[in-house]
Amino acid sequence: MLSPSDNGHYYHLKSPSLMPRAAGFLWNKKMMIQMNCRGYAIAQFMQPEPAKYAYAPNLEAKTFMQPEQPYYAHHPGRFFYLKDEDTGEIFSAPYEPVRNQKSEFCFSPGKTDIRWTVTCSNLEINLRLALPVDDVVELWEVSVKNLGEQTRNISLYPYFTPGYMSWMNQSAQYSPELQAVVASCVTPYQKYPDYFKNQHFKDKTYLLAEQQPDAWQVQREAFEGEGGLHNPDALQQDLLPCDDSRYEPPLAALQYRLCLAAGETQTYRFAFGPAKDDAEIKQIRDRYLSEVGFSQAEQDYHSYIGAGEGVLHIDTPDEGLNNFVNHWLARQVYYHGDVNRLTTDPQTRNYLQDNMGMSYIKPEVARHAFLHALSQQEASGAMPDGILLHEDAELKYINQVPHTDHCVWLPVCLKAYLDETGDFALLNETVGGSDGKTMTVAQRISAAMSWLLQARDERGLSYIAQGDWCDPMNMVGYKGKGVSGWLSVATAYALNLWADICEQNAIETPQDFRAGADEINTAVNQHLWDGDWYGRGITDDNVTFGISKDKEGRIFLNPQSWAILAGTCSDDQRTKMIKAVEEQLETPYGVAMLAPAFTAMRDDVGRVTQKHPGSAENGSVYNHAAIFYIYSLYTIGEADRAYKLLRQMIPGPDMQDLEQRGQMPIYIPNYYRGAYYQYPRTAGRSSQLFNTGTVSWVYRSLVEGLFGLRGDGEDLVIEPNLPHDWNSASVTRIFRGAKLQVTYQRSDAEAGLTVNLDGVDLPSNRVNGFQQGATYQLTVKLGR
Amino acid sequence: MLSPSDNGHYYHLKSPSLMPRAAGFLWNKKMMIQMNCRGYAIAQFMQPEPAKYAYAPNLEAKTFMQPEQPYYAHHPGRFFYLKDEDTGEIFSAPYEPVRNQKSEFCFSPGKTDIRWTVTCSNLEINLRLALPVDDVVELWEVSVKNLGEQTRNISLYPYFTPGYMSWMNQSAQYSPELQAVVASCVTPYQKYPDYFKNQHFKDKTYLLAEQQPDAWQVQREAFEGEGGLHNPDALQQDLLPCDDSRYEPPLAALQYRLCLAAGETQTYRFAFGPAKDDAEIKQIRDRYLSEVGFSQAEQDYHSYIGAGEGVLHIDTPDEGLNNFVNHWLARQVYYHGDVNRLTTDPQTRNYLQDNMGMSYIKPEVARHAFLHALSQQEASGAMPDGILLHEDAELKYINQVPHTDHCVWLPVCLKAYLDETGDFALLNETVGGSDGKTMTVAQRISAAMSWLLQARDERGLSYIAQGDWCDPMNMVGYKGKGVSGWLSVATAYALNLWADICEQNAIETPQDFRAGADEINTAVNQHLWDGDWYGRGITDDNVTFGISKDKEGRIFLNPQSWAILAGTCSDDQRTKMIKAVEEQLETPYGVAMLAPAFTAMRDDVGRVTQKHPGSAENGSVYNHAAIFYIYSLYTIGEADRAYKLLRQMIPGPDMQDLEQRGQMPIYIPNYYRGAYYQYPRTAGRSSQLFNTGTVSWVYRSLVEGLFGLRGDGEDLVIEPNLPHDWNSASVTRIFRGAKLQVTYQRSDAEAGLTVNLDGVDLPSNRVNGFQQGATYQLTVKLGR
Repeated sequence: MLSPSDNGHYYHLKSPSLMPRAAGFLWNKKMMIQMNCRGYAIAQFMQPEPAKYAYAPNLEAKTFMQPEQPYYAHHPGRFFYLKDEDTGEIFSAPYEPVRNQKSEFCFSPGKTDIRWTVTCSNLEINLRLALPVDDVVELWEVSVKNLGEQTRNISLYPYFTPGYMSWMNQSAQYSPELQAVVASCVTPYQKYPDYFKNQHFKDKTYLLAEQQPDAWQVQREAFEGEGGLHNPDALQQDLLPCDDSRYEPPLAALQYRLCLAAGETQTYRFAFGPAKDDAEIKQIRDRYLSEVGFSQAEQDYHSYIGAGEGVLHIDTPDEGLNNFVNHWLARQVYYHGDVNRLTTDPQTRNYLQDNMGMSYIKPEVARHAFLHALSQQEASGAMPDGILLHEDAELKYINQVPHTDHCVWLPVCLKAYLDETGDFALLNETVGGSDGKTMTVAQRISAAMSWLLQARDERGLSYIAQGDWCDPMNMVGYKGKGVSGWLSVATAYALNLWADICEQNAIETPQDFRAGADEINTAVNQHLWDGDWYGRGITDDNVTFGISKDKEGRIFLNPQSWAILAGTCSDDQRTKMIKAVEEQLETPYGVAMLAPAFTAMRDDVGRVTQKHPGSAENGSVYNHAAIFYIYSLYTIGEADRAYKLLRQMIPGPDMQDLEQRGQMPIYIPNYYRGAYYQYPRTAGRSSQLFNTGTVSWVYRSLVEGLFGLRGDGEDLVIEPNLPHDWNSASVTRIFRGAKLQVTYQRSDAEAGLTVNLDGVDLPSNRVNGFQQGATYQLTVKLGR
Repeated sequence: MLSPSDNGHYYHLKSPSLMPRAAGFLWNKKMMIQMNCRGYAIAQFMQPEPAKYAYAPNLEAKTFMQPEQPYYAHHPGRFFYLKDEDTGEIFSAPYEPVRNQKSEFCFSPGKTDIRWTVTCSNLEINLRLALPVDDVVELWEVSVKNLGEQTRNISLYPYFTPGYMSWMNQSAQYSPELQAVVASCVTPYQKYPDYFKNQHFKDKTYLLAEQQPDAWQVQREAFEGEGGLHNPDALQQDLLPCDDSRYEPPLAALQYRLCLAAGETQTYRFAFGPAKDDAEIKQIRDRYLSEVGFSQAEQDYHSYIGAGEGVLHIDTPDEGLNNFVNHWLARQVYYHGDVNRLTTDPQTRNYLQDNMGMSYIKPEVARHAFLHALSQQEASGAMPDGILLHEDAELKYINQVPHTDHCVWLPVCLKAYLDETGDFALLNETVGGSDGKTMTVAQRISAAMSWLLQARDERGLSYIAQGDWCDPMNMVGYKGKGVSGWLSVATAYALNLWADICEQNAIETPQDFRAGADEINTAVNQHLWDGDWYGRGITDDNVTFGISKDKEGRIFLNPQSWAILAGTCSDDQRTKMIKAVEEQLETPYGVAMLAPAFTAMRDDVGRVTQKHPGSAENGSVYNHAAIFYIYSLYTIGEADRAYKLLRQMIPGPDMQDLEQRGQMPIYIPNYYRGAYYQYPRTAGRSSQLFNTGTVSWVYRSLVEGLFGLRGDGEDLVIEPNLPHDWNSASVTRIFRGAKLQVTYQRSDAEAGLTVNLDGVDLPSNRVNGFQQGATYQLTVKLGR
């Protein structure tokens, strides 16, 4: 079973069969690795585009991470075979490829490393994977302990798979000088201008060993022979053959012969990664390949991850929430803001939202990102579909399809940054743009708002072009007429937010944006209110969809959430919407993005209908959409409903059907499989993908919604939404450099909310004047 | 061991371990399948680009066939598990995934089907794969025979793998109406214009069963469980669970429970392929899924393949040659000309050469192809890098890199067509072109020759731009100055050929092409003769390479071969070249393309140096280059040397190191691994790839060279080059509709050559006036 350890840093998975896809992930400044409990791995680094150093056995398409897909026998992995030289018995750690029964198995994905303890045949194997901060390299530590009374003769075989590196040229050999297996390949056929770009690629994959091996093997096929990966021929021999690989699938397998006295432990260290040449491999050896080197890397990495702790530490009656928020949530937000999902052209909306999250972690990074994004604004005021992060970067396929929502995210995300930092000076920073203009941040955002206002049809609704957020509907408006209900209310929300910011900061706007928002809200109510909820849009051919008469896709979540945020709906409408969402979209696994899921292509709507009913945006619990609904519920004080839906999203050992979901409870995935009513068997399963705009909004929902500790101008505003069955909670909130120790107390006696600061009752729920570095006690009393 | 069967149609591989990559291939009008002896398969069809219906377990890159790469456990395959229901014993046919020992194993890739007979556990399993002529579908027949005295209770599980069909949507279910497993997917994210193109794609993969199965399973992972592919959990159950697959890796596994009396055989039929919808699957069922349907398909396919028998049937002292030429060579030539390697934009040189081969098989196809290619000539006279075969086709990556040799192939290939058919009327056909002009074939070819003449530098040598034939050197001339030694002599050869043709047909040419050829030959001798051979080229920076002072790439084969063809060299030079080739390029596995192989990138030469020394064009026995050397040797009467090198290329059971080469002796691969002196361990290995321009030239070399039965104008010219140790041989040669039964007799008494036609001695080695449909006896007497 799963069990959190005492210090809350690790969850322990006690059997690899229980949750075969369970994985942890680590990243550093240059790379990312998702490490599976059974030994499979997905690792990527940037050069400048995402690249691999451990490849699949066939030529893989270049694509985004697809961790929901199952592993297969020859999937890239990091395996350690062991053989008892006296009995001939073989097994493997952590689990693959032999898959034999272990007397004990424990998988612990941690914040700064990933560990296993495996006991088999009276031997204890400890595995540890760590990354350094700044190099693309995996640091592996392996110890083998003799648990018995007899001396044991053991062979340990680290088995690392470079995989199918290149159809043009792949080879491998052992270098005695480097004490490493070095597999080499060559970037295949390229036009000559690409050659000059690609010639510095890291086309080698190495396995460095601290200790000199007794033998090695670098031909994958010969290693396996007819025995196969689970019982390789190579292990029948006394010693591996110390071969080479010439245009043959390379392998990095070493052999160590250990003689372990009773109780004795031996420890080995390895480094696995890509390099351009032997000199780079040598550098890695010198830097890391020793106990001291590993230890220094560990310390440095602790500091690095420690710098991403965020502004919230909580102690509530909900242990699962505490654990996730205190250990994992900020880490996931930090990951996004720190490495931009390992892309060079993040979609603009993702880039802005990921950096909104960074406002709570490293606000200087968020600030830079807003300026960088605005520097790529188009002359029209529109924002591009992706933000280029590298001079050689180009917009990839999906970013070549025009989406119309990117401007919306500017005020939406900036608001969180301003609230958190009070850095209103940002608004007056000048930004030289690729459009040739130099304008202030405020002027650029106003231009973006004006663009949104004009990108509407005669009804006053926003054009969708070939897609908007959650980008599933590419056929609604490709002829230039179709409109988006969601984008319309999102535009109204953005306009209102921006009008507020401008008012607060005495910034003049080129138009009356608030009036624009009102106009849109009126249009939406006129054309898209369907009686109990808002429709999703109107196609080029004037067909309104996402409405009650549709058999599939009757109701979409996003238009409802954002209508609440935009103030589009009356109280009566809101009540109806929330009821409709409850009845049609809420499931035991969270609130679905639309229902009923589409089962066939709808030519006038598009892409969403091409997906499996339970997949991704189509009928899934798409957490990014769900969190907006939750966030909107917090803005209207729907504390209990918001909390229920939030908790469905947050994985912990207590999560409903956690094993069915199949994911370690250390991150929020981008979706849980939906279509609960059509396909209950698969509903709730995790996508396994930790790249998601969701987490920034979970963070914001906790800060602003659940705990109600939002900045506003110079003030801290205290507006908590604790669930009504919580009697108390406490929170440490870092706010503009001060440490606030906040205690919430529920009392049946109280009416409303009172706030006490360091023993003094405050006249309102607003307070300011905190000193950097100081600590304050804030007591918040709540009525029932 | 390998053993040819009595009728010569099949080679039998007696153990899957002996030659693990042994495979046969079948094709029809729409598809191709390379079927491996162990059960692995690579299949492609056109819609219009090459597509798959059985995918790898991960998302594969779209790329050309790469059959040299080894298979891996979850590679697409066609497997049949068997279980003895009484003992629980399991095994699989043909071999994978259980890989258990078979008491007998026999793999027979045939001309019209691929068969196995496998005996295990006293059961005989016969497998047969066939294709129909015009549908994309595999027809599988499986019979199980009880060889024992006892009644046996057996489960038979056909296990077909749709694989990873789509990240966006994949599912599978059993359809009782169709009696089929139908796996479905959806083409992922696409721009909307692509949607309209792609919506007719065959996105379903089905396994149709003639007989109703007792159970089925369509979830790959659940089938395997912890047991793995070699020992799947599913086989532990009495019956498969009859499940469905929803966004889970699909599988098509069926179960039949057989009760077989002693000696009893039961036979099952299946069809596996892609379809757009259920209606298409239903059509396939109705058309094929019966004994009669299979039998009709077999007859039709026999007729189809029978139409490609070619013009040569031989009976020589060399049994291996007889077998290959009589059964396999024409088939491979036919494959190329019939389906153009399953591309929509074949490289121009490949398209012309493949159709040159078709001149011997179906000359009307070759004729059409020449006209089609010329219709895409550019206004300058240049030929494009690829010929588009479909209205939606586009030039792919490699065809976007400018190569300068395409025009050369026009007269070179047309010459063979004219010699074979006497269809000189083709020269005066008018061709409307994409250049807006209407010109005769002769005018277009003259324009191409003029283009070649002008595409030369001040020395008179031909520019190489970013590559020429065997396209390995993309850096020699990318700045616009570098020249190609090979292309220069090839241009001279083409000009001479074209001048001959024009002279013969009284066609006026815009320039004196023969003078142009002389001029080039002079320039080549002046700038590229290196003392013992010709250099390969001169770089942009005026560095001559492929010469004696180079440490790597000292000598290239192609410039020597073509200098012989072009008449560039004196007799003395030729003798020196042949000696240099013998010393530096001949190996036990054939004549290598260059030597010594490059081991590192040479920035001023390019791509070739990025390849592994033994791979593809770099230092390999690249058969396409080798056959030109052989062809050139025949033109100068070097009969024994040519024969020796030719026989090194032709696979047969008698081939040197056949098992090391690892290929069934049923086709000539595009290369054998070279770098014989650097890497003897891997030298000689087959690329496994049967797509190669080599075969058309082997055919031509046999017709013109070895057997010397070439057409010329209205005549047949008899100029044989039999090896000197052959005392006799006989050949049936179809020539312009007549059947010539040719007998060669060697006699010590004779001097020179005498020819006797139907009992009458001829005054020369030229004869004409054959009647369509008539049979002639031709006796050729040769001196020693």
